[in-house]
Amino acid sequence: MLSKSQAGYIKSLHQKKYRKEHGFFLAEGLKTVTEFIHSDYTVDTIFCTRAILPNLVNLSQKIKLNEISEAELAKISTLVNPQGVLALVRIPESGSIFPKNFRGQISIILDDIQDPGNLGTIIRTADWFGFKNIICSDGCVDAYNPKVVQATMGSLARVNITYTSLPGFLSSAIYPVYGALLHGTSVYDTVFEKEAFLILGNEGNGISTEVQKFITRAVTIPYFGKAESLNVAVSAAVICSEIKRKTLV
Amino acid sequence: MLSKSQAGYIKSLHQKKYRKEHGFFLAEGLKTVTEFIHSDYTVDTIFCTRAILPNLVNLSQKIKLNEISEAELAKISTLVNPQGVLALVRIPESGSIFPKNFRGQISIILDDIQDPGNLGTIIRTADWFGFKNIICSDGCVDAYNPKVVQATMGSLARVNITYTSLPGFLSSAIYPVYGALLHGTSVYDTVFEKEAFLILGNEGNGISTEVQKFITRAVTIPYFGKAESLNVAVSAAVICSEIKRKTLV
Repeated sequence: MLSKSQAGYIKSLHQKKYRKEHGFFLAEGLKTVTEFIHSDYTVDTIFCTRAILPNLVNLSQKIKLNEISEAELAKISTLVNPQGVLALVRIPESGSIFPKNFRGQISIILDDIQDPGNLGTIIRTADWFGFKNIICSDGCVDAYNPKVVQATMGSLARVNITYTSLPGFLSSAIYPVYGALLHGTSVYDTVFEKEAFLILGNEGNGISTEVQKFITRAVTIPYFGKAESLNVAVSAAVICSEIKRKTLV
Repeated sequence: MLSKSQAGYIKSLHQKKYRKEHGFFLAEGLKTVTEFIHSDYTVDTIFCTRAILPNLVNLSQKIKLNEISEAELAKISTLVNPQGVLALVRIPESGSIFPKNFRGQISIILDDIQDPGNLGTIIRTADWFGFKNIICSDGCVDAYNPKVVQATMGSLARVNITYTSLPGFLSSAIYPVYGALLHGTSVYDTVFEKEAFLILGNEGNGISTEVQKFITRAVTIPYFGKAESLNVAVSAAVICSEIKRKTLV
């Protein structure tokens, strides 16, 4: 059963303002919810349909499990086609789950990424290629936006996301700062340091002038056709793949 | 001025059924519309606001230019934020613009890609890396869907899209057929032939069993983290990048 006040509370979490106020976000779908249960995130309450209940009972003894009808789930879901389960997950204090550690690795920096699908895909791709940290400018879309959570396919549970003001953060960066720009060294010819940052910019405007100042090495994906630019999640993937490929040779 | 019947006709083209019936699709935004004007596609009619008119008058002497108000544009646009110009573009007969030629190049095959953003991003990425042909299974989302057109950022004007039944097509393929699968040879270690096909599969189910039969070489993107899969547009980009990188060394 779902009370009217519960439904109202959960629906409020569709919006960033109320996620910030209450400190919770929504995760949906068995795979994604399971990933959060198995992570260091705190899953507070789960609402699920009878059909999916057997998949959840043994996973989550500390978590309140509420069986609701499909019609009730449809009312609170952020999805056009609800997937049988919705969880309330606590938004972690910055640094509480993942200690801030940029040593021995390359961390990804995102400058004002606006599209939830792009941010989600970048988080999923970072997880695939083993990048553990993403630092988002304050102007980036909220990583706990339901569309972002969905697009990460569970990878949000494993990648450290930090929001900060990039000029402040970068002014104290002690590692090389790579930036994806249109006129830099080919990513294929770039030798990547083991400890570094990699900046990717906004969908329409690229990396802002203010943030570009901190780039020590501009990196470019060579083009072979006539498109003027690549999607930012695609650029992130190509560069992450190339960084990892070079660790294997 | 926009008549009621014009508005109704254009709005019908938001749907695949009517695009097929009338043989036209919609392109929006100055960059995209300009790309189609400069391509071999036939742009039939343009509707634009007064503000954007000066950018179009010299481009398109053969095309009917209709000035409409922003409110009228909002009524017929497929976008939440209309971009000042909407064009009616003729859907080409298969093979009429781009002769079907798979010689001397690698062509991309898509098996039931469902998400318009994914198809659009793959077309844009193919254009960036100089891949000229995309063969879509009949179950793929329509490439003239407004969301696909938008996501290609004009690249649809330069990449040959063909819809066909894949088993029929592949049974007469005389080149090697690479397929992106989870357990194949690393894409980094694969030597790609110059003339070949590269298959990418559906977002949820991958390449169908029926189509997998035609794969002569399974290719895998190595993982370094814990994500279970990559977004299909990301996979396409990583493999296309790797194919092109190898032509440079």
